[in-house]
Amino acid sequence: MPNDLALPVLDPRRQPIVRAPATDAPKEKCGVFGIWNHPRGAHFTYLGLFAQQHRGQESAGIAVTDRNQIIAHTGMGLVPDVFTPKVLAELAQSGHAGVIGHNRYSTSGGSQSCNAQPLLESFIDGQVAVAHNGNLINADALRHLFAERGHLFHTTSDTEVMIHLLAAPEQRLTADPIAATLRRLQGAFSVAFLFSDRIEAARDPWGWRPLVLGEMPTGEPVVASETVSLDVVGAKFIREVEPGEIVTLSDDGVTSRRFAPEAPQLARCVFEHVYFANPASIVFGQNVLTAREAMGAALAREAPVKADYVMPMPDSGRSAANGYASESGIPYREGIVPNRYVGRTFIKPTQEERAAAVRLKLNVVSEIVNDKKLIIVDDSIVRGTTTRVKMKQIREAGAAEIHVRISCPPIKHPCYFGVDFATREQLIAHERSVEEIRAYLEVDSLHFLSLDGLLSTMKHDQPSYCTACYSGDYRIDVEHPTTEQVVYKEQLGMF
Amino acid sequence: MPNDLALPVLDPRRQPIVRAPATDAPKEKCGVFGIWNHPRGAHFTYLGLFAQQHRGQESAGIAVTDRNQIIAHTGMGLVPDVFTPKVLAELAQSGHAGVIGHNRYSTSGGSQSCNAQPLLESFIDGQVAVAHNGNLINADALRHLFAERGHLFHTTSDTEVMIHLLAAPEQRLTADPIAATLRRLQGAFSVAFLFSDRIEAARDPWGWRPLVLGEMPTGEPVVASETVSLDVVGAKFIREVEPGEIVTLSDDGVTSRRFAPEAPQLARCVFEHVYFANPASIVFGQNVLTAREAMGAALAREAPVKADYVMPMPDSGRSAANGYASESGIPYREGIVPNRYVGRTFIKPTQEERAAAVRLKLNVVSEIVNDKKLIIVDDSIVRGTTTRVKMKQIREAGAAEIHVRISCPPIKHPCYFGVDFATREQLIAHERSVEEIRAYLEVDSLHFLSLDGLLSTMKHDQPSYCTACYSGDYRIDVEHPTTEQVVYKEQLGMF
Amino acid sequence: MPNDLALPVLDPRRQPIVRAPATDAPKEKCGVFGIWNHPRGAHFTYLGLFAQQHRGQESAGIAVTDRNQIIAHTGMGLVPDVFTPKVLAELAQSGHAGVIGHNRYSTSGGSQSCNAQPLLESFIDGQVAVAHNGNLINADALRHLFAERGHLFHTTSDTEVMIHLLAAPEQRLTADPIAATLRRLQGAFSVAFLFSDRIEAARDPWGWRPLVLGEMPTGEPVVASETVSLDVVGAKFIREVEPGEIVTLSDDGVTSRRFAPEAPQLARCVFEHVYFANPASIVFGQNVLTAREAMGAALAREAPVKADYVMPMPDSGRSAANGYASESGIPYREGIVPNRYVGRTFIKPTQEERAAAVRLKLNVVSEIVNDKKLIIVDDSIVRGTTTRVKMKQIREAGAAEIHVRISCPPIKHPCYFGVDFATREQLIAHERSVEEIRAYLEVDSLHFLSLDGLLSTMKHDQPSYCTACYSGDYRIDVEHPTTEQVVYKEQLGMF
Amino acid sequence: MPNDLALPVLDPRRQPIVRAPATDAPKEKCGVFGIWNHPRGAHFTYLGLFAQQHRGQESAGIAVTDRNQIIAHTGMGLVPDVFTPKVLAELAQSGHAGVIGHNRYSTSGGSQSCNAQPLLESFIDGQVAVAHNGNLINADALRHLFAERGHLFHTTSDTEVMIHLLAAPEQRLTADPIAATLRRLQGAFSVAFLFSDRIEAARDPWGWRPLVLGEMPTGEPVVASETVSLDVVGAKFIREVEPGEIVTLSDDGVTSRRFAPEAPQLARCVFEHVYFANPASIVFGQNVLTAREAMGAALAREAPVKADYVMPMPDSGRSAANGYASESGIPYREGIVPNRYVGRTFIKPTQEERAAAVRLKLNVVSEIVNDKKLIIVDDSIVRGTTTRVKMKQIREAGAAEIHVRISCPPIKHPCYFGVDFATREQLIAHERSVEEIRAYLEVDSLHFLSLDGLLSTMKHDQPSYCTACYSGDYRIDVEHPTTEQVVYKEQLGMF
Repeated sequence: MPNDLALPVLDPRRQPIVRAPATDAPKEKCGVFGIWNHPRGAHFTYLGLFAQQHRGQESAGIAVTDRNQIIAHTGMGLVPDVFTPKVLAELAQSGHAGVIGHNRYSTSGGSQSCNAQPLLESFIDGQVAVAHNGNLINADALRHLFAERGHLFHTTSDTEVMIHLLAAPEQRLTADPIAATLRRLQGAFSVAFLFSDRIEAARDPWGWRPLVLGEMPTGEPVVASETVSLDVVGAKFIREVEPGEIVTLSDDGVTSRRFAPEAPQLARCVFEHVYFANPASIVFGQNVLTAREAMGAALAREAPVKADYVMPMPDSGRSAANGYASESGIPYREGIVPNRYVGRTFIKPTQEERAAAVRLKLNVVSEIVNDKKLIIVDDSIVRGTTTRVKMKQIREAGAAEIHVRISCPPIKHPCYFGVDFATREQLIAHERSVEEIRAYLEVDSLHFLSLDGLLSTMKHDQPSYCTACYSGDYRIDVEHPTTEQVVYKEQLGMF
Repeated sequence: MPNDLALPVLDPRRQPIVRAPATDAPKEKCGVFGIWNHPRGAHFTYLGLFAQQHRGQESAGIAVTDRNQIIAHTGMGLVPDVFTPKVLAELAQSGHAGVIGHNRYSTSGGSQSCNAQPLLESFIDGQVAVAHNGNLINADALRHLFAERGHLFHTTSDTEVMIHLLAAPEQRLTADPIAATLRRLQGAFSVAFLFSDRIEAARDPWGWRPLVLGEMPTGEPVVASETVSLDVVGAKFIREVEPGEIVTLSDDGVTSRRFAPEAPQLARCVFEHVYFANPASIVFGQNVLTAREAMGAALAREAPVKADYVMPMPDSGRSAANGYASESGIPYREGIVPNRYVGRTFIKPTQEERAAAVRLKLNVVSEIVNDKKLIIVDDSIVRGTTTRVKMKQIREAGAAEIHVRISCPPIKHPCYFGVDFATREQLIAHERSVEEIRAYLEVDSLHFLSLDGLLSTMKHDQPSYCTACYSGDYRIDVEHPTTEQVVYKEQLGMF
Repeated sequence: MPNDLALPVLDPRRQPIVRAPATDAPKEKCGVFGIWNHPRGAHFTYLGLFAQQHRGQESAGIAVTDRNQIIAHTGMGLVPDVFTPKVLAELAQSGHAGVIGHNRYSTSGGSQSCNAQPLLESFIDGQVAVAHNGNLINADALRHLFAERGHLFHTTSDTEVMIHLLAAPEQRLTADPIAATLRRLQGAFSVAFLFSDRIEAARDPWGWRPLVLGEMPTGEPVVASETVSLDVVGAKFIREVEPGEIVTLSDDGVTSRRFAPEAPQLARCVFEHVYFANPASIVFGQNVLTAREAMGAALAREAPVKADYVMPMPDSGRSAANGYASESGIPYREGIVPNRYVGRTFIKPTQEERAAAVRLKLNVVSEIVNDKKLIIVDDSIVRGTTTRVKMKQIREAGAAEIHVRISCPPIKHPCYFGVDFATREQLIAHERSVEEIRAYLEVDSLHFLSLDGLLSTMKHDQPSYCTACYSGDYRIDVEHPTTEQVVYKEQLGMF
Repeated sequence: MPNDLALPVLDPRRQPIVRAPATDAPKEKCGVFGIWNHPRGAHFTYLGLFAQQHRGQESAGIAVTDRNQIIAHTGMGLVPDVFTPKVLAELAQSGHAGVIGHNRYSTSGGSQSCNAQPLLESFIDGQVAVAHNGNLINADALRHLFAERGHLFHTTSDTEVMIHLLAAPEQRLTADPIAATLRRLQGAFSVAFLFSDRIEAARDPWGWRPLVLGEMPTGEPVVASETVSLDVVGAKFIREVEPGEIVTLSDDGVTSRRFAPEAPQLARCVFEHVYFANPASIVFGQNVLTAREAMGAALAREAPVKADYVMPMPDSGRSAANGYASESGIPYREGIVPNRYVGRTFIKPTQEERAAAVRLKLNVVSEIVNDKKLIIVDDSIVRGTTTRVKMKQIREAGAAEIHVRISCPPIKHPCYFGVDFATREQLIAHERSVEEIRAYLEVDSLHFLSLDGLLSTMKHDQPSYCTACYSGDYRIDVEHPTTEQVVYKEQLGMF
């Protein structure tokens, strides 16, 4: 496993650790935003990050350049907490030629302030700031390589490794150092580099994570992880950045080149559609909300059951529940009410209060569920602990039968490409049958959408999606990362 | 109008003003919570207030007694912001014999920190802290009366007036000073008084605002504005506090007495069901979520229209939309996606960014709405400005027809009993016909649920509900407030 | 004792208590500042309060009027902590017609945020803000009187009582309500009232606390507790406000009237010269620094001793040590070094760290004190605990002999007029002889300046100074406070 | 000049810049503290840093290890602001095996949060944290060297360069990497390295900055910049760390080795005695306070003048003034009163308020200075601007004559070894005669202590002190820094 290649101690923490709350939800990983030479660049980046807040709530950051110096501000917390009006005004004054921003939820690197992005470094050719969505499987191997040469590391993130590559003579002295750098990365990356004279945005050859190109009404180019960010800042969606492509945003507008051909087998993350992305976004050419409705419909066909109502687990199960209800003809009805004010911070409770804290998140309306047979639809089950608690709440409110329907297959394998599901052992579906999970949840029936069912709702060919978390079928050999660009040499013989 | 009776200058502001954001939503007014002698009283009050956060986001406060001294902490902002772990621990150490708490959204008094509740005062008989949900129409008259006697005021809230009454000899020297005080109040009040030896909780004779009694699993008595608070803290719902009733929570358990008979015509606020209360709560003996579904069904019967989808305005229109869809047989489909992270604080934008800020709140999924005829269901329209912007977003996403259906009648009259709708002039339905509103919103059709239709969904007799905001039929004469308890003397001849 | 007249419970605390650190120093009481109609009034008040910071470090506050409304901001902490640039800018925008400010160190009322001043209240005639330096002995009696009438109290300070008097018909309906109010106060008060059209500043008939009148270069009138504040804001010193005088600062300039004749026997607080006031100030017509030098010289004449050096306890003993050295001919030498960064906040230490924390405050230079006979000069000893620790440090640094000389008599009696020395029992000189104190301090000799010696350094006649803390000779009967203005009626028969 | 060797852009700023206030005082440079394996190590480091606060007020930091991982916390501001009780408790929990701390005032690197120390990095052998007092003249040359190899930099401080050296194979693969690293540094460094198993503390071969070794009563070894830190934590002073020596603090106690011989000509910074160090410290074997008195006495012999008083500029001129008075027989008298509450933060003033802000810092007592001939003694004049303002204040208070006496020679040359005097052009003595300075200050006479006079007060041989700021006689060639250890090769032929 890649994580076993770590250096003896590579965990510098420059601030006391902020621990992420234990939660059943998969941790999303990061959003990227960039805009070139817009007079209100910092403010629009703030808005663009705000629109991508769902992709990462741990930290946020913005880097700006005035074509001379790059300045960055990063902080732990939500976008509006990190960027006070005063901080944003200072950034705006410091430059608007180019601006990149980042939302972060830790995957590699841990939940530490030193890992907040954009990461800003100086090297022999000047400054560079980097915002990265994804995860590299050869980061530890590369880090080891550079450490042996005497390099220092002050974060634990794989993003720092990218910059070491870029500054190293074997890349730096080539005709295209960025391309040379990217060719040595194995794994998922949608990334934006800010230099004093341009933004370089790129997407890995497998296309794991989304990255789109847009244009402001006044013509300035924009890149973002999701189209919802373009919508919010008022930019027109132009196209996806292609797998293996670098786009350059500069005073010359947008130019494009490839650093690698598309991988023979693409690896679009299907979980972006299942859970991550904003329902209003177009991801991999397909709207997310309608994809989720289609998953619900597929689920209804695969696992019909007689019931009084189809009821979504709010807010994640709503679209699939709607699809299930339409397909099955069973009435859609809401009966579980979320508290809109429950955030991450919470007074440390006693055991008695812990139960209350769970009830604070959701309230079940017994007038609706009492004596009723319910089909409860949700998007996924990761560790199962909070799902079990919720099912108990529904049962206590009087439900006669609970039939759980999940709009994706059981998650049995870790993701090494940007989703932090918890360890393999913590996954409830790891070495447990569906029947065992059903018994644990204490529900009357349980069905997970089949992989075929899921992929049938996707726009592109089935092999172009990464489904490793369900199937274990990893697109690249996660057991044997390499620091060379052998992937391309061997497979493609062309770079 | 009662507000014209103000003293020359009665607006002391002890802190720089925090201005509430302009918004189209009616401002909810306040939640009350109290618990007697629970070892974790302060912590459960924190949880109870958190569950009632939807009733007031401006300020929060908790007062505790150790049977000797009363201590209070109040602050501007949401419950988890006001009560850090350190503050809550200090309160818990300062007493748990009795605890009351308050969520506040300004009605009378303005958005000022001096008005945060519970309000704590000393008088000849000791200390008292008061948490109040509602609004008095004779507060200014009473304030004038006491000011003439030489009394001082350090807030602008009507709650301070209650305590002046309580401390004044004509009430204080009676056999039941609390009852004597409450009999002189005209208007809406669900109120909790904390003394060093008991909590006294009362509800006005008209029953405008909810107030319920509960019991912890370990037997301690609880009062709360809504049953959802009881559910969260794990308390059993016992019953509503009756209009005109005082319940005393003390070491002797719960005792009850009347300070007045029920008003001949009750005035349960129907808007609690339309908008205010948590969907999971039971208000005036009826679940809120199912009431809203019934409103939607009534709306479908009153104003059918051919369309592709019934689509809720999230989150407020969901239950009614579901009811409309069920009744009409037109498919329920969501296509408007709210951003869950948009709160009250926001960087001051330029005009260009202001448009972006609006798009940040909601995104419309054009894949769903494009070329479709839509029935958009929402709970109410107050000023109409943000509704207009939202309709424009839907239109731009490609909707072929937009038919707006609102689950209550047009709001034409101000509320003097605890809802801050904005001024009469700001109400879009004030002196505008439904057709004029439709034209302003630029939609294809518009229908408001009729008052009869609305009341047909309510559990109790129609005259027992206050519908003044729709009908102008105020239960008491808001033009002629009195400082005497003539209401009772004249009408009832018994107190 | 006046404190025994308290109401059953009159201690409302609206915020968790901030406890003042235990310290040997007498707690100073409050500074007052006011300026009428200066365009930068709020900013100069900030500077004026900053210059009087030594008179009170617990809280600070500023009230401003725009001739219509009065706004106040108060907060716990030092002036620069309470008034951020943002807060000061908001105050400045809210008005500059009149501004008053206050530094506070608790005497009556306790260390609580509800007691921060200026205290702002509304009454029948409008708003008033009050800043008060001093202490009233009949505040509890007056509070009781008003409480019996039904008045409410939300602070524990005697300042609130002043405003109740002002608003009460028996004062308010007279020709001069302020004068009528002040005539009913017994005790020390230098006070500024801010109304929307004027500042009224007054000093009690005994003249306990200083209050001076000044004029800005541009003509605007100023009042301040100390002349050092006038110096800092660039105002010219005009004169002292007279005991029994009210000066009015308004658009008509400064006008003066008396509310009472001067008391037959004045009561200028001699401790202002010994310890409180800034050395650069002129207090009661006499510079403070030179007065302290004279005390040191008197001490040298009273208690000569052979020694190598006269050494001040920094910073309080420096002027007196210099006077002692000049008079005795023994060299003045510093050998105790204070840490300039030790403030009020400190990490709670273990026993071991507590000793370190004491050493952090002062370091003794053993190269200087070793084997030397030292005369250590300080201004006063209150509780003696920290003096004892310091003497131990000097002994451990090698001093051969330590002769302590104190520039005022032993403090044996509490002050009821604005100095919080600690309780009678905590005073080391209460029921202890000088020899007992010397033994406790473990020093070779100890001498306190005699009362005659102290008064010989003062400019005015000896009976015009209050020396009650040394002599127990209180100017008014602290055991029998009255709520009537009998002091004047009986003694003077004229008001 | 070394600063000209900078890389194209090497100024990454990860946080908005905090600008240091313009001031006339030389900026002190940094304090270092370390303690091995004390159970309360973090707390005592906090106290030790607090005692050295005068050496750096810009930022503070503490790094701790539990023998496995190193954690650091750094922040802008004073020690008690950076280390809240919560932060200190978290550090204490994270390890107490070894702790180092740092006070910082920027010299190289600018006033930026990324430069706060201890600096924590990971490299091939694990983690290391570094706290550094001093300045390197070959840092830019070394940074360039490593940048050419492809290394990254995320601070602008010379401390980061040290760690690059340590991790580079040419040092790392030697028998003693620390020694090999230190031998390549040119300039001033008293430095502490924290590894998971030891602290390595070293002092440059010239001995520019102080560094002392101590022992806790319970036996744990301590290093500190000044003895006052040892005194405060209760440690016994053992000895100075020798120039060219490395001491290792570990479970084996203290061991010592040399990385270089002492430089043939030492370079003890005489300005430590003139201004920097705490008066209570023993620096280079000599107490600071008595050294300053001796400087004052030498000044009296060199530049006698008839006057009424010798008056110190507080607080920096006090010891020298005392020495001057003793030697001259002219009475010592204080007449300038500093405000103890003026810190670094201040509301941005208008021109009018700027004058007030200056008066806020100091008040002159005209009762003392009026019509008097004064000898004003201060330690140094750097830029002269604030001295000029102060002299004007004294003149306005009525002084008849002002004779300024400065206890060191005119500062004409920049320091490259840890003192930030401002640029050469800003130094008032740069290309100005004493007479020109006198005229600028508008005083009656001015004398600077001669270099011989200054050195006559020092304990060691005159050539062992660095006096470059006065004489321009730099101990090493600041114009031609080298990245090799040629200094030793050429001069000493032995390492």
